[in-house]
Amino acid sequence: MGYTNQENFVAFWLCLEDYFVKITCKQQDLSRGLSVVNHAVSSRSTLPILANILLTTDHGRLKLSATNLEIGINCWIDAEILEDGSTTVPAKTFSDLVGSLRQSQVELSVPEEEQTINIKCQGTHSTIKGMDPSEFPQIPSAEGSELPVTLDTKQLKEMIEQVAFAAADDDSRPVFTGVHVEFANEQVTFAAADAFRLAVRATALPGDEQAHDNILIPAKTLNELARILPAEGAVQMIVTPNRSQVLFHSDNVDLVSRLIEGTFPNFRQIIPKEHSTRAVIETKEFAAAVKTVVPFARDSSNIARVKVSGGSEGEPGTLTIEATAEDVGSNVSTINAAVDGPEQQIIFNVKYLSDVLAVLDTPEVALEVTSAARPGVIKPVGPADYTYVIMPMSTNR
Amino acid sequence: MGYTNQENFVAFWLCLEDYFVKITCKQQDLSRGLSVVNHAVSSRSTLPILANILLTTDHGRLKLSATNLEIGINCWIDAEILEDGSTTVPAKTFSDLVGSLRQSQVELSVPEEEQTINIKCQGTHSTIKGMDPSEFPQIPSAEGSELPVTLDTKQLKEMIEQVAFAAADDDSRPVFTGVHVEFANEQVTFAAADAFRLAVRATALPGDEQAHDNILIPAKTLNELARILPAEGAVQMIVTPNRSQVLFHSDNVDLVSRLIEGTFPNFRQIIPKEHSTRAVIETKEFAAAVKTVVPFARDSSNIARVKVSGGSEGEPGTLTIEATAEDVGSNVSTINAAVDGPEQQIIFNVKYLSDVLAVLDTPEVALEVTSAARPGVIKPVGPADYTYVIMPMSTNR
Repeated sequence: MGYTNQENFVAFWLCLEDYFVKITCKQQDLSRGLSVVNHAVSSRSTLPILANILLTTDHGRLKLSATNLEIGINCWIDAEILEDGSTTVPAKTFSDLVGSLRQSQVELSVPEEEQTINIKCQGTHSTIKGMDPSEFPQIPSAEGSELPVTLDTKQLKEMIEQVAFAAADDDSRPVFTGVHVEFANEQVTFAAADAFRLAVRATALPGDEQAHDNILIPAKTLNELARILPAEGAVQMIVTPNRSQVLFHSDNVDLVSRLIEGTFPNFRQIIPKEHSTRAVIETKEFAAAVKTVVPFARDSSNIARVKVSGGSEGEPGTLTIEATAEDVGSNVSTINAAVDGPEQQIIFNVKYLSDVLAVLDTPEVALEVTSAARPGVIKPVGPADYTYVIMPMSTNR
Repeated sequence: MGYTNQENFVAFWLCLEDYFVKITCKQQDLSRGLSVVNHAVSSRSTLPILANILLTTDHGRLKLSATNLEIGINCWIDAEILEDGSTTVPAKTFSDLVGSLRQSQVELSVPEEEQTINIKCQGTHSTIKGMDPSEFPQIPSAEGSELPVTLDTKQLKEMIEQVAFAAADDDSRPVFTGVHVEFANEQVTFAAADAFRLAVRATALPGDEQAHDNILIPAKTLNELARILPAEGAVQMIVTPNRSQVLFHSDNVDLVSRLIEGTFPNFRQIIPKEHSTRAVIETKEFAAAVKTVVPFARDSSNIARVKVSGGSEGEPGTLTIEATAEDVGSNVSTINAAVDGPEQQIIFNVKYLSDVLAVLDTPEVALEVTSAARPGVIKPVGPADYTYVIMPMSTNR
C-alpha cells in the first residue's frame, strides 16, 4: 500500500507486523462511538453477524456501524490510521472490553487473512474473534437522493419528544406506529396518533422551498435518533431515491431507517375547530395533580374524572381531577384555573394526561373542552405550534 | 384526650371530626420513612397484611413498621400528633401517593371505627383502604435483653460491605448464608464464607468487657441494614432474650432479624499461616486488570490465570492475569508488582477477585500465594484487620 518503490523496506515491515487494519484511537472516543452504534445492534437475530459491529477505516477516521435491519447507525470517530481495512467484532464482548480499559490510547489491529482483532492498551493485550466483514449488510448512503432538509438538532429532539410518545405501541395498524412528517409552506409538521389521542407539532423551515413528499417514520426510530444525536448542531434528513428509507446525517453520526408504507389519516379533521370551555392552568400544578391520582386510577382502567368550573364573585375557577378504585381508595385534587365558559365534566385516561404534561415546557397550558362526549384539546399557552387531542372515555358508573 | 372538663367543647369537636388517629407531618419526612420501611415489605406473602405498613403514634412521633417475617423495620418520624392511634395501609399505594405529593405538610387521619386513612396535602384529598392493625405481626423490641453492644455506624457499614458479599447465595447449607459475629478481647469480628472463599474483618470494641455469645446473622439482613442506616452515629446491637433474634437500634430506625441456627466452622483454620510468595500491587491497577479479563473469563467458567514473577536486575516484578474463551478471544494484562519469593502461577475465579477488589480502599493490596493448589490470600497493605482467602481452581487444560 504505497511502498511499491521501497520493496526492501516493505518486506522488512511485513515480516514484523503484517496487518490488514491497524489504527490507534482514544479509549474515550471509541467507548462513546460504541455506545451510539450499540442502539442498532441486534442480539437476538437469526443472522449472527447482526450481533457484530463493523469497523471500517474511512477517510482518516474510524467508522463504526451496526444494524438490526430496521435501523442502521454509522458513527465516525477520530483515529490515526496506520493501515486501511475493515473487520467485524461481537458488539457485547468488544464494548465490555473497551469499557473496562483505561482512558488512554487504544491500538486496534487485524493481522492479514484473519478475522481476529488485537486490542492493546496500557499493559493489556486482548484478542477477539470477529466475522468476515463482507457478510455485513450494507447500510445505505444518501447518494443520488433528493435534496436534504436541514433541521436544528435541538428543535428536532424537542419535536420527537413531544410527538413520538403518542404513536401506538402495537403493530396491529402499522401506520399508527409511525410519526407522519409533512412539508408545506416552509413548515415541517410531525404528527402521531393512536386510537385515542393525537399529537401534532409544527416548526418553521425558513427558506425551504423545495417540494418534499410526506413520509411516515417509525416512532421507535425517532426515539433512538433523539438518544444518539449530539446536543446541538444541524441534522440533514434525506429520503433515499427509492423512497423506502430515510437517513439522518449529522457531523459524526448517520442513522438510516426504513419508512412505513401506507397513508396516515387526515389528522386535521380530528382536531376540534371550536370549544365551549377553556381552562388555563399552571403546567406544573396540573402535572402534580395528575400524578397524585395515578396510584388510584391504575386499578380502575386509568379513569380520571376532570371537572372545570368557572369561579364566581371574584373567586378563581378550578380544575378538579378525581380517581376512585373500589378496593384501594380515592383521590381528589383541586387546582386553580382561569376558566372561560360553562362548567364541564369529562373523563380521560390519566396516562394520556401525564404523558403530554411531561413534555410541555411552557409555564401554562390550556385545556379546551366542548362536552363529555367530544375530544378535549391540550395546548401550551403562548406558542401556537403544538396541539394534543384526547378522546374522552365513557363509563356507566 | 384531656378534654374531660370541657365537655361542651369536646362534643362540638367530635361532631365535626371524629378521628381515631390524626397527625400532621412533613411530606419529605414521611417519604424518607417509607423508603426505609419498604425494605421489609413483603408483596408476595400469603399473609395479605404483610403488604401493608403499620402506622402508630408513639410518644409524640409517628412510627412506621413493616415486616416480611424474616426482618422487621421500625422507623420513627417527626409528627404533630392530634389524636393517638394506629392503622395499616397498603405499602405500594401509600408510598406512590406520598411520593407524588408536594413538599408540604401532610395530614393523616383515620375516622373512628374505620380502617380508611384520609390523606390531605395542598388541595389533594385521598382515601386509602387499610386493614385492622391488630392483625399486624408484632415486631419484637429489645426489652429484657442482655446489654447492647454499641458500634459506630460508619464502621459497621464498612464491615458489612467487606464481609457480607462472601456469604453463599443459596440455602443448601444455611450457615454459609450468614455472617458469623464474634466478640472476644475487646474486638468484634465478622466472618462469611462460601465453599471457595472466606472474608474476615475485625474491629476494636474499646471498653466492651461483657461476655457475648457468637451469633450468625443472615447476610441479606446486614445488606438491608447497611442500606437503611444513616451515614453516621451509633448503632446498638441487641440479641433478644430467647437468642433467636437480633435488633439493631439507631436514633430513628430499628431493624430486627431472625438469627441463623447452627455453628459456623472454625474459619481460623482455613487462613493460611504462611506463604512462599507475596506480591504488593496498587489496588486500582489490580482492579482495572481484573476488569479487562472479565469479558473473556465469563464464557470460560470465570477462569483467570494469575502469574507473579519477581523482577531481575533492577526491573520491577510483575503480576500477569489472563483469560481465554475459545469462541470469543483472550486477554492478558500485566501490571507492576513488588514481588517477594519465587514465581507462582495460580488459577482463580475472576469474580472472587473483582468482588474483593471492589471493597478494599487502601492504595495497595498484597496477594500471598504458596502453590497452585493452596489457597491464596488478599489483604490490604497497612491495616491488619482484613483477610480474604480464595481457593484456587484446578484445570487440566
